[in-house]
Amino acid sequence: MKRALLVLVIGCAPAPAAQHTPQWVSDTKPFGAAPPPSIGATGATGVIGATGVIGATGATGATGAAVAPGAAPTAAAPASAAPAASSLAARYREPVDKIVSTAHADREAYRKLSYLTDRIGNRLSGSASLERAIAWAAQTMKDDGHDVRTEPVMVPHWVRGVEAAELTAPIARPLRVLGLGGTVATPKGGITAPVVVVHDWAELDAKRDSVKGAIVLYDVAMPKWTEDKGSGYGETVEYRGRGASRAAKLGAVAALVRSVTAHSLRTPHTGAMNYEEGVTKIPAVAVTVEDATLITRLAAQGPVTLHLRVENQMLPDAPSANVIGELRGRERPDEVVVIGGHIDSWDVGQGAHDDGAGAVTMMQALTTIRKLGLAPRRTIRVVLFTNEENGLRGGRAYAKDHAAELPNTVLAVESDSGGFAPRGFSIQARPEVADRIRARVIDIAQLLRPISATRVTLGHGGADIGPMGPAGVPMMGLDTDGRTYFDIHHTEADTLDKVDPQALADDVAAVAALAYVVADMPDRLDAP
Amino acid sequence: MKRALLVLVIGCAPAPAAQHTPQWVSDTKPFGAAPPPSIGATGATGVIGATGVIGATGATGATGAAVAPGAAPTAAAPASAAPAASSLAARYREPVDKIVSTAHADREAYRKLSYLTDRIGNRLSGSASLERAIAWAAQTMKDDGHDVRTEPVMVPHWVRGVEAAELTAPIARPLRVLGLGGTVATPKGGITAPVVVVHDWAELDAKRDSVKGAIVLYDVAMPKWTEDKGSGYGETVEYRGRGASRAAKLGAVAALVRSVTAHSLRTPHTGAMNYEEGVTKIPAVAVTVEDATLITRLAAQGPVTLHLRVENQMLPDAPSANVIGELRGRERPDEVVVIGGHIDSWDVGQGAHDDGAGAVTMMQALTTIRKLGLAPRRTIRVVLFTNEENGLRGGRAYAKDHAAELPNTVLAVESDSGGFAPRGFSIQARPEVADRIRARVIDIAQLLRPISATRVTLGHGGADIGPMGPAGVPMMGLDTDGRTYFDIHHTEADTLDKVDPQALADDVAAVAALAYVVADMPDRLDAP
Repeated sequence: MKRALLVLVIGCAPAPAAQHTPQWVSDTKPFGAAPPPSIGATGATGVIGATGVIGATGATGATGAAVAPGAAPTAAAPASAAPAASSLAARYREPVDKIVSTAHADREAYRKLSYLTDRIGNRLSGSASLERAIAWAAQTMKDDGHDVRTEPVMVPHWVRGVEAAELTAPIARPLRVLGLGGTVATPKGGITAPVVVVHDWAELDAKRDSVKGAIVLYDVAMPKWTEDKGSGYGETVEYRGRGASRAAKLGAVAALVRSVTAHSLRTPHTGAMNYEEGVTKIPAVAVTVEDATLITRLAAQGPVTLHLRVENQMLPDAPSANVIGELRGRERPDEVVVIGGHIDSWDVGQGAHDDGAGAVTMMQALTTIRKLGLAPRRTIRVVLFTNEENGLRGGRAYAKDHAAELPNTVLAVESDSGGFAPRGFSIQARPEVADRIRARVIDIAQLLRPISATRVTLGHGGADIGPMGPAGVPMMGLDTDGRTYFDIHHTEADTLDKVDPQALADDVAAVAALAYVVADMPDRLDAP
Repeated sequence: MKRALLVLVIGCAPAPAAQHTPQWVSDTKPFGAAPPPSIGATGATGVIGATGVIGATGATGATGAAVAPGAAPTAAAPASAAPAASSLAARYREPVDKIVSTAHADREAYRKLSYLTDRIGNRLSGSASLERAIAWAAQTMKDDGHDVRTEPVMVPHWVRGVEAAELTAPIARPLRVLGLGGTVATPKGGITAPVVVVHDWAELDAKRDSVKGAIVLYDVAMPKWTEDKGSGYGETVEYRGRGASRAAKLGAVAALVRSVTAHSLRTPHTGAMNYEEGVTKIPAVAVTVEDATLITRLAAQGPVTLHLRVENQMLPDAPSANVIGELRGRERPDEVVVIGGHIDSWDVGQGAHDDGAGAVTMMQALTTIRKLGLAPRRTIRVVLFTNEENGLRGGRAYAKDHAAELPNTVLAVESDSGGFAPRGFSIQARPEVADRIRARVIDIAQLLRPISATRVTLGHGGADIGPMGPAGVPMMGLDTDGRTYFDIHHTEADTLDKVDPQALADDVAAVAALAYVVADMPDRLDAP
């Protein structure tokens, strides 16, 4: 009875100028980080008054108190007080408040992630641990009541072996290296060669005459994270991706790439590297910021020589699979909202933020909707893609195998920016529909003020869902507070202790709310 | 001519209410850190107007423009405008402004540190690199014109070998470990044993019945750095120091200690460990925060077993030396100001902050005074202590060998808190003289406002100078902005790239200014 009254307040009360931010809003900051700038600015929505519901909602699903799906609230916020686009927020305030408060109080995503990281561990394509992760994810989604299937995909099978490097002149000093994904091995026993240091492509060209027979070090510093620009990952990572082949074209015998991070504790970062067709494949390894800057300082004073030994191997492609779990739509089951992350990871650390967090976020988002008894008009489908890191075979296979469905895929959402506190969504869509999609998502995101996930931008969707883009599927990335993401990205330090259970729960809330509304709203998200 | 005029302005002008903070004040912040809270609050001293001198002072020593040592300024700041204790600041404003502006603009300390770290590297007691470092320091101080000698000290000679650990149940997982200083080896082939996790001594006692035959993990979290409390190192490090023997008394076969840091990228931290006399010596290694928390999570769910292999050895004591360089006093050469750091380091990283920075700070402080032609009343003596990290033999030997001089050692200053931006000084002295020393140091530190090194507290002097304490020598530690120190302390990440040349230059300025005034002032620092 008390609850019903409170729900009514949530749905009906005009928004007061909030003086009080409830504790459960302010405790969403990631461990060890200052609260994101948006927290504190939060407030002033009708839902703020709903604190009483938050503590009670853990039991909501258990009591089976289903919200009438898609039904208009009995008393929506006055249209005159809101912009024209606010109809979605008004219409879905009640079920979304249920979703957000339930997910916010739930720790099941974190428990799933604990199993995936602590018990299974990292999971590179072709590894036994990826096979275990896929089987676990399928069983877990079955246990949660979803319709589950796996779709086979053949994936690259690259295996890391011994990787070692040391300076041999002007000093003897061991270096910390980590092979880039797919790197070829050195000749047996390794290679010893002079080092040529460059800081950008122009310097590589300028030094082209000295590159033949040498090891090229790309000492390219990643800028620090800023509120405006984010991480600077995109502008730095191209040296990791293309550096080996560009150096090989000039006759280099190996490439070293400064780890793509702005913060290092002698921490090497691996990642994808692409050999160009028809260019000699040379070994390519990441070095730490510490070692890259050491080599650069020494090279400014005279010749530097190093020894590199890499024994990695590429095996024949291995079987793998995308894992799919869904809640079938009640009216238009052929129209689909895809929510996805990738189940594979690099072979270092635990793949906790990248992308264990994304995978369990999607699993738990669907479970949250199902447990609340919500039955959306359209189908919501979790896709856990395989092989994002070193091949994108899962994403490509999905887009190809489901090509016939893509015209009816009304949205694809990906979480692959770490399981940090949600900030909102980044939309990637055809220019002719982008603005209207943005307007609708801004409208929906009003309901995410309690978890500060209201930022809606035009930008990047996600790597795995990218292959659906050419078919015109609107895409969205879950935008998270990524200020520390690239400190641990693709390293031994991407481990569960870096994940804040509350932030992860709020990621679930944000995705579940968005997916539910988009799956249930009368029009398609991109409708004129 | 122009310079002489500016110097006059420094010495004579009454302090204006500064509206403008010159660039060279604001650029003293460490790389990658927010400016310390005191910066920005700085200003409003006569020296602020001296910006014009800063750029010119690099040449001051070269032109031999000596400041009349100890002479009272021709026109001191009006006594009425300053507290009674301001006589030292007034008297020494001119030479200290010279010292500070010269040192602030000088990069020679950083160049010295570059050689020590990049060319020589880390330097554990007994290693060839420590021998090289000692020879280099002696020659460098000779080249700078000081009176130099080395004083032999025998030091422990512990050598790190293979160190490896992995979980064997309930999962197989490699761990990152780093042996604590002096740890004994495991039996050949290693040991496999169940793990007992404790979070404090009380829990160790409570679990005493399960410790026999087990490996004890001390999962003790170091608190985060705060402005008020600093690092929390002291309250955490006792488990590293005493944990092995306390566990051994209960029958444990090995000890794991969570690395003493509040910020980890899977980074193990070594450090001193002390076996208790008469207690069985068991292997003791540091584990990363990531691995400690993993083991704790698993142990909460059931039995955990791990395999540990340590092949370190303790060799016979090796010859080493303290390195001493001095500027003999012009009037009371038998009265001595000692300024010291330690020349040894752990065998990981480069020993850049710990304590390469302290060593070069002291070397360059003395050189700065000498090059400015300053001739203090008393002797200033640089002491580069050997074996601070795993024995303190250098500090003990100095206090013993110089026992007869200690009554005339008017001050001992140590820098061993990292080469970060200076904040001031921490005084450790007999209670009956501490307050009067503090009052005088506060007075002197007024002159360090341009580099924000004005904080004077009662606290810790330094490990190496500590053995002089019982003889009543007043001690002081250079207090630095240590918020990131324990991220890199005793790790592979203590490297030159973490050192800000400007911060290091300001450390030199702070120590040189203090040492010069204390060596030259008419009364002893602790005089009634």
